[in-house]
Amino acid sequence: MASLADIGLAAAINILSAIAFLVAFAILRLQPFNDRVYFPKWYFKGIRNSPTHAGAVRKFFNLDCRTYIRFLNWMPAALRMPELELIDHAGLDSVVYIRIYLLGLKIFVPLTFLAFAVLVPVNWTGGTLEHTRNLTFSDIDKLSISNIASDSNRFWAHVVMSYAFTFWTCYILHNEYKVIASMRLHFLASENRRADQFTVLVRNVPPDPDETVSEHVEHFFCVNHPDHYLTHQVVYNANKLASLVEKKKSLQNWLVYYQNKFERYPKNRPTVKTGLWGMWGNKADAIDHYSSEIEKLTKEEETERERILSDPKSIMPAAFVSFRSRWGAAVCAQTQQSSNPTLWLTEWAPEPRDVYWHNLAIPFVEITIRKLIMAVALFFLTFFFMIPIAFVQSLANLEAIEKVFPFLKELIEADAVKSFIQGFLPGIALKIFLIILPSILMLMSQIEGYTSLSSLERRSAGKYYLFLLVNVFLGSIITGTAFQQLSNFLNQSANNIPKTVGASMPMKATFFISYIMVDGWAGIAAEILRLKPLIVFHLKNTFLVKTDSDREQAMDPGSLEFASSEPRIQLYFLLGFVYSVVTPILLPFICVFFGFSYLVFRHQIINVYNQNYESGATFWPDVHRRIITGLIISHILFMGLLSTKGFGESTPLLVALPVITIWFHIFCKNRFEPAFIKFPLQDAMVKDTLEKATEPTLDLRSYLHDAYIHPVFKDEDFYRSSAIEEEENNPLVATKRNSRLSTPVHSKLGSEFGSENEA
Amino acid sequence: MASLADIGLAAAINILSAIAFLVAFAILRLQPFNDRVYFPKWYFKGIRNSPTHAGAVRKFFNLDCRTYIRFLNWMPAALRMPELELIDHAGLDSVVYIRIYLLGLKIFVPLTFLAFAVLVPVNWTGGTLEHTRNLTFSDIDKLSISNIASDSNRFWAHVVMSYAFTFWTCYILHNEYKVIASMRLHFLASENRRADQFTVLVRNVPPDPDETVSEHVEHFFCVNHPDHYLTHQVVYNANKLASLVEKKKSLQNWLVYYQNKFERYPKNRPTVKTGLWGMWGNKADAIDHYSSEIEKLTKEEETERERILSDPKSIMPAAFVSFRSRWGAAVCAQTQQSSNPTLWLTEWAPEPRDVYWHNLAIPFVEITIRKLIMAVALFFLTFFFMIPIAFVQSLANLEAIEKVFPFLKELIEADAVKSFIQGFLPGIALKIFLIILPSILMLMSQIEGYTSLSSLERRSAGKYYLFLLVNVFLGSIITGTAFQQLSNFLNQSANNIPKTVGASMPMKATFFISYIMVDGWAGIAAEILRLKPLIVFHLKNTFLVKTDSDREQAMDPGSLEFASSEPRIQLYFLLGFVYSVVTPILLPFICVFFGFSYLVFRHQIINVYNQNYESGATFWPDVHRRIITGLIISHILFMGLLSTKGFGESTPLLVALPVITIWFHIFCKNRFEPAFIKFPLQDAMVKDTLEKATEPTLDLRSYLHDAYIHPVFKDEDFYRSSAIEEEENNPLVATKRNSRLSTPVHSKLGSEFGSENEA
Repeated sequence: MASLADIGLAAAINILSAIAFLVAFAILRLQPFNDRVYFPKWYFKGIRNSPTHAGAVRKFFNLDCRTYIRFLNWMPAALRMPELELIDHAGLDSVVYIRIYLLGLKIFVPLTFLAFAVLVPVNWTGGTLEHTRNLTFSDIDKLSISNIASDSNRFWAHVVMSYAFTFWTCYILHNEYKVIASMRLHFLASENRRADQFTVLVRNVPPDPDETVSEHVEHFFCVNHPDHYLTHQVVYNANKLASLVEKKKSLQNWLVYYQNKFERYPKNRPTVKTGLWGMWGNKADAIDHYSSEIEKLTKEEETERERILSDPKSIMPAAFVSFRSRWGAAVCAQTQQSSNPTLWLTEWAPEPRDVYWHNLAIPFVEITIRKLIMAVALFFLTFFFMIPIAFVQSLANLEAIEKVFPFLKELIEADAVKSFIQGFLPGIALKIFLIILPSILMLMSQIEGYTSLSSLERRSAGKYYLFLLVNVFLGSIITGTAFQQLSNFLNQSANNIPKTVGASMPMKATFFISYIMVDGWAGIAAEILRLKPLIVFHLKNTFLVKTDSDREQAMDPGSLEFASSEPRIQLYFLLGFVYSVVTPILLPFICVFFGFSYLVFRHQIINVYNQNYESGATFWPDVHRRIITGLIISHILFMGLLSTKGFGESTPLLVALPVITIWFHIFCKNRFEPAFIKFPLQDAMVKDTLEKATEPTLDLRSYLHDAYIHPVFKDEDFYRSSAIEEEENNPLVATKRNSRLSTPVHSKLGSEFGSENEA
Repeated sequence: MASLADIGLAAAINILSAIAFLVAFAILRLQPFNDRVYFPKWYFKGIRNSPTHAGAVRKFFNLDCRTYIRFLNWMPAALRMPELELIDHAGLDSVVYIRIYLLGLKIFVPLTFLAFAVLVPVNWTGGTLEHTRNLTFSDIDKLSISNIASDSNRFWAHVVMSYAFTFWTCYILHNEYKVIASMRLHFLASENRRADQFTVLVRNVPPDPDETVSEHVEHFFCVNHPDHYLTHQVVYNANKLASLVEKKKSLQNWLVYYQNKFERYPKNRPTVKTGLWGMWGNKADAIDHYSSEIEKLTKEEETERERILSDPKSIMPAAFVSFRSRWGAAVCAQTQQSSNPTLWLTEWAPEPRDVYWHNLAIPFVEITIRKLIMAVALFFLTFFFMIPIAFVQSLANLEAIEKVFPFLKELIEADAVKSFIQGFLPGIALKIFLIILPSILMLMSQIEGYTSLSSLERRSAGKYYLFLLVNVFLGSIITGTAFQQLSNFLNQSANNIPKTVGASMPMKATFFISYIMVDGWAGIAAEILRLKPLIVFHLKNTFLVKTDSDREQAMDPGSLEFASSEPRIQLYFLLGFVYSVVTPILLPFICVFFGFSYLVFRHQIINVYNQNYESGATFWPDVHRRIITGLIISHILFMGLLSTKGFGESTPLLVALPVITIWFHIFCKNRFEPAFIKFPLQDAMVKDTLEKATEPTLDLRSYLHDAYIHPVFKDEDFYRSSAIEEEENNPLVATKRNSRLSTPVHSKLGSEFGSENEA
């Protein structure tokens, strides 16, 4: 095991590399030509534009030395924006997301102080390791629970601290849940009028022999919500059309690429191979080829559009039903409509950007079956993912390569190459798997049939957390694959599982400390440097971008990746809880991680990420539940550890901890969770009344008219023509579109953040 | 182990004793003076009255010999009433309850045939036991899975049958759930107008400094349900008053008893001791004593009534809020009212008879804490109940008695008495505990804070099921107390638990067969004989009854005891599933139990039980869930058994069974459970529209006016005076009260069932 000095050295290296990243970031971000990579959000808000007033060099490089001196001043800048303004600027989802890091600080900073004040002295003076002969130990071990003799009364300190930590965590968690629930309610209450406030998504509309889906929906809601029903919008199965549009877009990209190429080198007209992946087949003139392809697709698209609108089969048994008031929508979303609970399923409509159109037409029975299959698949993926990877690895060895490609034999046999391949190949399959894992999990969630992007992200995060828990946390403590662990566990006593894990916990502390530094610290530093988007943007900017909208697309930073980053944060919570009692020296590393992450992500959500949708922090119950899970796991492992230490008499005392924690969870769930899934009538009524008083002449029908049409139909003439004519030119819709841009707050902030470059 | 002949003999004995019970029942029920014990339901319906037309002897004894010959014809009579009529006569709860027995038949009769056709021959020709020396075995064992050699391919038959049984069970369960859900919906749809259709129970009304609870409720619902709110009824804390009324009633009973005594023997005026339990203290004239006590209580009652009505503190923060339409009530019951989900909690009001008034005022946090405490208490009760009982037993031994009561020494030392005490005393504490257990569990459910009698019964049933599962089922298979089992289990491998239980399963088959006969068959026969109510009724009738209403009270058979009898049925389901593959010979005994029970309980709900409330079969999801639990337990134990038989390779195949079953459960839950907890708006709208068309002038406000007042206030002048005067003499309320009695169907049935006596 590593000594304190080793850990210090590793920490120093990691800190240095993090600082190197930060310095690189500080320099790169000051260059105007990187501005769109590091401050894309301001461009999207329309507050910043490409610098035009300076000369050619100053357009690309920042030659003002004074700005380099203050290379760390993005940090206070990131912290300066007050929270309310931040919600307005970046949305509630992002703000609540960075509050997870803040929550980590709130929990673990006091825990660190308490643990260093009480447990470290107790452990340090335990003196067991010094008196045991033939044992190598380090200072880290002297600080951990390993230094205390079996059956010593000193363990009472740990038991008491375990209680103190749990109560503190629950106290903070409770406060945070309360704050976030009220933030959400306040956010929903202060929101402007939005289409989803009036709209309910209805699925599984039963087929009717005499009526079309649209008529059936209208009649049903006219009868059963007579005073509240306003209008509805059927859902077309436009999946094929969407893929055509997608394909056309990519072809247009290539066309632009070759046109640019041709402009630059007008002598040789670019050619392309028309076969598979552009690597086989006949050569053809690239520009002509793509132009004709695009033409073909455009026609195909037209036919498909017409087919969708004329064919009744392309209307899915689902609809977005809008109501006269928020009250009416809240009632419909929360009640059961028909006596058959699998028909006329209503749920609050996700906001239009958040809809996952692909899944709107899956019938009830199919969803149940899909969920079963995905649950089984997730189990196998979690516990048996090593089997196919090991198989691929066994194929990808030197002999196999030599057999398939005999001409490579000499090259491979060279020592340097050989050792490189031997060291590299076995890992590559695993690395590739881990990189694509979030996509696999997202695909699984999509198959499960969720209808909004936000719910897809939440479900994927849950799956990823399970994977990390089993394969990273347990897998690191107990060596061996998850499958071996599972079979070991099944053949062990139920009592022995926490014992086995608990007993090996203290020995793995140094491993996890370096894990936190490498994966956590360096990961966050890499996050702010944005190396991949930086390269991709400059490549695209050089080869593809022609118009401003192209450039906007190229610099689009996308959303925060909740599905993959939230479970990683949860891993740090888990490590913190587990080691808070066992090896408190790990806690400062966790605290640094949370603090640094908070800083970086606050900067990122202000300057970089541009959320695709706004769910109003609906993910918080999941975050809360997973933190509670981590806490309970830590209790169980601590019980196991103490019983291997001959301190089993404390077990009855410790059993109370998970019981209390579970009860606390149920309490919080009942108390706060409804705020995230239900819609109080009182609040709806307040907003309705206010609106009626301030805007008595509001034409809601035209406001809602095209809110929920499939994105491929948006801004299409042909769709409009099928809609009611007189509603077309309603000023409200236009107003809403414009109002997104440039409010006073944004311009003020934009100038504040932009000032460094312009100085 | 018992041989087939032994089992046959035991069966014969049990069948004979059951027949003896039945003959006794056949004779007793034909005696007119027992009529009120065996046919009370008809008296409550007002169809039967005490025979008056015959002489003194014929009034008490049935001297018509012909009726004795047909002593078993209650059986076809019980089956004759069609189900729809039965629902009308006995309510949906009772009908669905007896359908549990029918479900047992539907599942286990085909299972029996299949098992006897396939598994019995396979087992019989297994030939292992014959070839093993030094082993005593019986024919029962030759029919069971024990007769098959380790690792034999014959086990495939059992695996395949296990699948067949599971699919059959799921098929039947699915159909049954479907039928009962539609029965419930049909029942609710065809019900007459009832107060609870329009009413919602609102709890946790927040305190308001400026308004009373009543005003606050009215304002809140006027604002948030403006078009639908009609009226409301506050809830008084009348618990003290109710106990006073209860006490007065019991004193009045005693007064009547002594008055009757005095009338019979006018010479000596009865006296009573005024101290504790009437055993100590001064002697006093009994009639005077009770009269004066009653007078005192009446005054106290008056003061308490006035206090409740005048003191604002006696108004609880809860109310029954009624709406103009069923639609409005359905909306309010299913939606969240306030942004704080612990305030303004709404739920569909139980019907007035079903309300458990005592629990209406418990605040949210307290309920959460109470539930935690009760969950912990249930755990200890289930696993550690033997500890206090063993303690009591250790106290109640011979020496202890001799020490406390030295004068009894000689009596006790007599051999006969001594052996009696030694055989009797250790068991008595356990017996008493088992008798009062359902009451303990009911008390625990009451502490948990449920607000309706039906939910209390459902929760108690769940607790009792857990107790039976752990202590009767597992406790019988593995000898030793539940606590010892628990500690054994914790120290065993998770894999080993089903192995241990599974391996000892086949050996316990004969025990469970005799359990089914003694507890099941004889229990049902005793149920129809109603020995305890028979004795109690005649005692009361002799000593207390003076008026007709007294007699009605004395003969009140109460409701079916769902809380204690349903978990017992579940035990038979569990036994059936577990042994269907292992020892199929047990199945016919289960089938006989279900068939016989169905017959008996169909008779009982027609002639005896008088349900206190009608919940519309809301308990079915619980029944379904527990049957599924039994099925899954059987799968796990079968897996354990096969792996001890060296047939572990089938485990992966068998693991699919519980997974499929759990999925099936989730599917059914989503598909059918909403019918039992939610209230479709479509159905509400249909009923509303119909009512508006047929009774456009209905005065709903007066109809609902006193529907939800505490029973102690019912029919009290003082309460009426505080209500609005002009609503008093509304004909609707009176009509409803009268309409309970004598509809054409009832008279027809009454005469049919009554014909035997009158012939």
